[in-house]
Amino acid sequence: MKVGIIGLGLMGGSFALALKRRFKDRDEKLEIIGLDHNDQHCLEALELKIADKITDDITDLFNLDLIVLTIPVNAILKILPELKDVSSDTTIIDFGSTKEKIVDAIPKEIRANFVASHPMTGTEKFGPSAATRKLYRGKVVVLCNKEENAKRHLKFAKDIFRDIGMKIFYMNAKEHDVHAAYISHMPHAVSYALANTVMAQENPKAILALAGGGFKDMSRIAKSSPNMWIDIFKQNKQNLLTAMKEFKKELEQLENFIEEDNFESAKNWILKANNLHDIL
Amino acid sequence: MKVGIIGLGLMGGSFALALKRRFKDRDEKLEIIGLDHNDQHCLEALELKIADKITDDITDLFNLDLIVLTIPVNAILKILPELKDVSSDTTIIDFGSTKEKIVDAIPKEIRANFVASHPMTGTEKFGPSAATRKLYRGKVVVLCNKEENAKRHLKFAKDIFRDIGMKIFYMNAKEHDVHAAYISHMPHAVSYALANTVMAQENPKAILALAGGGFKDMSRIAKSSPNMWIDIFKQNKQNLLTAMKEFKKELEQLENFIEEDNFESAKNWILKANNLHDIL
Repeated sequence: MKVGIIGLGLMGGSFALALKRRFKDRDEKLEIIGLDHNDQHCLEALELKIADKITDDITDLFNLDLIVLTIPVNAILKILPELKDVSSDTTIIDFGSTKEKIVDAIPKEIRANFVASHPMTGTEKFGPSAATRKLYRGKVVVLCNKEENAKRHLKFAKDIFRDIGMKIFYMNAKEHDVHAAYISHMPHAVSYALANTVMAQENPKAILALAGGGFKDMSRIAKSSPNMWIDIFKQNKQNLLTAMKEFKKELEQLENFIEEDNFESAKNWILKANNLHDIL
Repeated sequence: MKVGIIGLGLMGGSFALALKRRFKDRDEKLEIIGLDHNDQHCLEALELKIADKITDDITDLFNLDLIVLTIPVNAILKILPELKDVSSDTTIIDFGSTKEKIVDAIPKEIRANFVASHPMTGTEKFGPSAATRKLYRGKVVVLCNKEENAKRHLKFAKDIFRDIGMKIFYMNAKEHDVHAAYISHMPHAVSYALANTVMAQENPKAILALAGGGFKDMSRIAKSSPNMWIDIFKQNKQNLLTAMKEFKKELEQLENFIEEDNFESAKNWILKANNLHDIL
């Protein structure tokens, strides 16, 4: 199998390592060709054996078995027109965290072979050195608008995701973007805001010296890449703003209860929050 | 050493287990006498060897070497007057998450032997069965208003905290409560609000099926005990409200940038948040 990976960071690098692991004991050879505008990342990817070869000519990937787009969402939008001449035998997968704008922008020539995906995983780290073979194992991947895919391409993508241990969910792109706003995009905004609230205090060091597990967990994703997240915020602007407003409403609910010394209602509000964990 | 533990939940139970570990290879015997208004917790504490004995008579603890208060902060306030006849040879420690009101309410008879403490650790779980020997290891404990303690009691408390692997910080109670609002109390409010935002959606199950590590981390403490946290919110009301307002201001900052498509400023705002991790 020949795989082209566009974007050799955490997501692309981890995908390569996971695939390599799966092919370790197989007769079939796996070859990974990497492309990344960052030369340093290309060198690191070769060193870390994420990629077997590097190319800067995207057409080198047009007849491979699989092309994976693991670049920020706005970069996906920009590169899509360049992919219209990819072979109809090549399956294309993107890992973008937003889906509606991407699905709308897929050139019609490659719509049947383009499986729009969102693996619900990641870490706050980035770059090829952050790549880890287990990033996808046991995690959820959402495939969007599968009815627009040719069956064989959809099956190929599904087989690969299952191969690396993922659970597959289906959703339309619009619904995905709403859900992702609540479960991922708004929580990132909240984590960044939490970090900035402490950083804005007179003596953040003295405060942070006291950080226990709760604060560390809640501020972990505030380390996430600004470039990647600005792109996501841009592409999912309306859903994100709605989710942020609803979050603010909830927080203000508690604020009002506390201001009014209405601790009975505050307690019921907390009990509702506790229920989350019966589901999660 | 004879130790009385009032409150046999996560914090008291874990403290007992940590102490028992330290005394395992010593000649000195350790005896732990537990007191808890919850009979079920008392039984579990005996079964789990958290306590060697149970009493329902608080005066049984008045001549021990150490009394530890590991009950919710309002319960500490209520029990303080009952402790005024504790021997002046007994060191008393409380683990309350707020400190100003507690320090103000310590009866003058036991002020010299009462070391006001706040271990910056915990989990979202509660009850004796949640107790774990390693809860305190490597964590910070804040000792407040130490100048009001007799030297021997302060030293005794410090020795014990160091014995179970804790790092000691000193602070006055007022300053502690401000810092704790930012690093612990407000983040709990935020985590509860995040959980409630998702639970209020039309189909929370469908959204939560997509939860990755970020959301799971951020909502973990939303499982925390309502009774304990309502007490904390009550006792640290003003600092908490201030911290919540500043957090909201940060979030609204981002909201405005996104609404105005000012993604350059949004990016700089995120870069500021990233800086947290140079300190933490």
